[in-house]
Amino acid sequence: MIHTPTAKGVAEAAKAIAAILPPTPLLPVSINGMDCWVKAENLQPIGAFKIRGAWWALSNLEGDRVVAVSSGNHAQGIAWAAKRLGIKATIVMPRDAPQVKLDNTKALGAEIVLYDRPGEDRDEVASKVIEREGGTLVHAFGNPWVIEGQGSSAIEMTHQLGREPSAIVACCGGGGLAAGVSLACPQAKVFPVEPEGWDMVGQALASGEIVHVGEDAPPTICDALQPAATKQLNLNVLRGRAQPGVTVTDEEVRDAQRWAFANLRMVIEPGGAAALAAALAGKVPLDENTVILLTGGNADPQRFAETIAA
Amino acid sequence: MIHTPTAKGVAEAAKAIAAILPPTPLLPVSINGMDCWVKAENLQPIGAFKIRGAWWALSNLEGDRVVAVSSGNHAQGIAWAAKRLGIKATIVMPRDAPQVKLDNTKALGAEIVLYDRPGEDRDEVASKVIEREGGTLVHAFGNPWVIEGQGSSAIEMTHQLGREPSAIVACCGGGGLAAGVSLACPQAKVFPVEPEGWDMVGQALASGEIVHVGEDAPPTICDALQPAATKQLNLNVLRGRAQPGVTVTDEEVRDAQRWAFANLRMVIEPGGAAALAAALAGKVPLDENTVILLTGGNADPQRFAETIAA
Repeated sequence: MIHTPTAKGVAEAAKAIAAILPPTPLLPVSINGMDCWVKAENLQPIGAFKIRGAWWALSNLEGDRVVAVSSGNHAQGIAWAAKRLGIKATIVMPRDAPQVKLDNTKALGAEIVLYDRPGEDRDEVASKVIEREGGTLVHAFGNPWVIEGQGSSAIEMTHQLGREPSAIVACCGGGGLAAGVSLACPQAKVFPVEPEGWDMVGQALASGEIVHVGEDAPPTICDALQPAATKQLNLNVLRGRAQPGVTVTDEEVRDAQRWAFANLRMVIEPGGAAALAAALAGKVPLDENTVILLTGGNADPQRFAETIAA
Repeated sequence: MIHTPTAKGVAEAAKAIAAILPPTPLLPVSINGMDCWVKAENLQPIGAFKIRGAWWALSNLEGDRVVAVSSGNHAQGIAWAAKRLGIKATIVMPRDAPQVKLDNTKALGAEIVLYDRPGEDRDEVASKVIEREGGTLVHAFGNPWVIEGQGSSAIEMTHQLGREPSAIVACCGGGGLAAGVSLACPQAKVFPVEPEGWDMVGQALASGEIVHVGEDAPPTICDALQPAATKQLNLNVLRGRAQPGVTVTDEEVRDAQRWAFANLRMVIEPGGAAALAAALAGKVPLDENTVILLTGGNADPQRFAETIAA
């Protein structure tokens, strides 16, 4: 039977995740004169919200082998959860993934299979691994348990805030987090924020169909937000719920990283700063019940140094 | 009547502070294979624990003018509290204080009077301000309410941990925080950590007398931990309670800043990383109920960039 992600599933995921991970801080901030909130998922043990979906998916896994494809944060989440659950993890990662993400994933005990980002099809590489070694693929965003697990972040913020947020601004790659928080908070507006030229979720929402990234997609510093396309599962949840059309430039992302350094004293990686970037750039409406997700902090030290010293 | 800092006073301070500031996160960490905790005071709204003592001192202030002397974090704490309480604040700051601390203090609405760190006596500069304009001096560490306020951090960690910590490792300038946490947690071992050559608290504890910094004191990157001497009030509280003798080098502090960047995804300023540096260097014993205070995150971006890129 195919598992469909539901609000009930998110609530169950939130309970399972609360048993193993303390809630991440919800911190008050003032952005362009408006008081609102940031949820610091960069303070998770693996430095990203991906630990949530990974934990819930592996807690529901049949079998003792998992295969995942990831540019780095889903990889670390899967490796972290697999280690604790005694599951063997093989992760297909792009050769140009930030060294810090490759190192962290390896340190957590996962086996890594590298591929070349332009040229090789990562899903094909994963299929070959599964043919050869067996195991179950846990997709980084197009997986029902992953979606439910990511949604637990919004259950947490609702508890911390004492009410459902009016709006949730979320960094968006394939749309796993955006789908999860949409299920968790049916009253909240959900704003997925994507890098310019990589708005595969926004384009899918606008057209009603899955859109694949073009070969002429511009470079982006948001290494965590470069999906080839969203999945039907995500689109089904997000349709009618998420607001399409919010994108940010590399310079807006760097501004947000600098702002978080100076005002929040936190390290945010480029892809983890997209939602904050949109808020600072005035691209999403803010009120006192808006929550901005800071989704990851696995920044390359050299590049982070260049950004804050600029 | 002279107010003496007490455990009861710390408990009252903790209540007052909890009414205005959410608890800072207590995060699990693994240091050299040992599980323990860090308390992230760098995530306070002003980026440092000093907001606690400043709030409690100004809540008990007679009159509507405050004068303070500070290299930057007490300055920001006083300015933040004064603004909310409708008190006029004048802060005497060294001309070589990090620009970020000067800018933040000014942005919070305080008046700044600059002095030259070698040459001018900062207490004399403050006395002249008070003679000219009136106001009450709130000393950065040798003030009973400041000590009680800083101690509230240890009340918080006790609640978060569900028991009193076995040991508290605290960055130490003049000894306000160390004194406060000693009062808050009478069973806990307290380890004040000072920069090499600036161990004015350690020397005072060892000799039983106030010791003044020599003119040949070495440079330190810990701009927040350069007191001329501790005060009798602090020594009275710390005597028989705090363990003297833990000092850290600039290189150990930089290692700790890099470690926090990569493993905690947080920004810690040099003086705020001293306790973590001692823990990472194996200079304090750790167990599963040890709490390491990360006391501040107001790092100069250029210097922080140099540190993490090294």
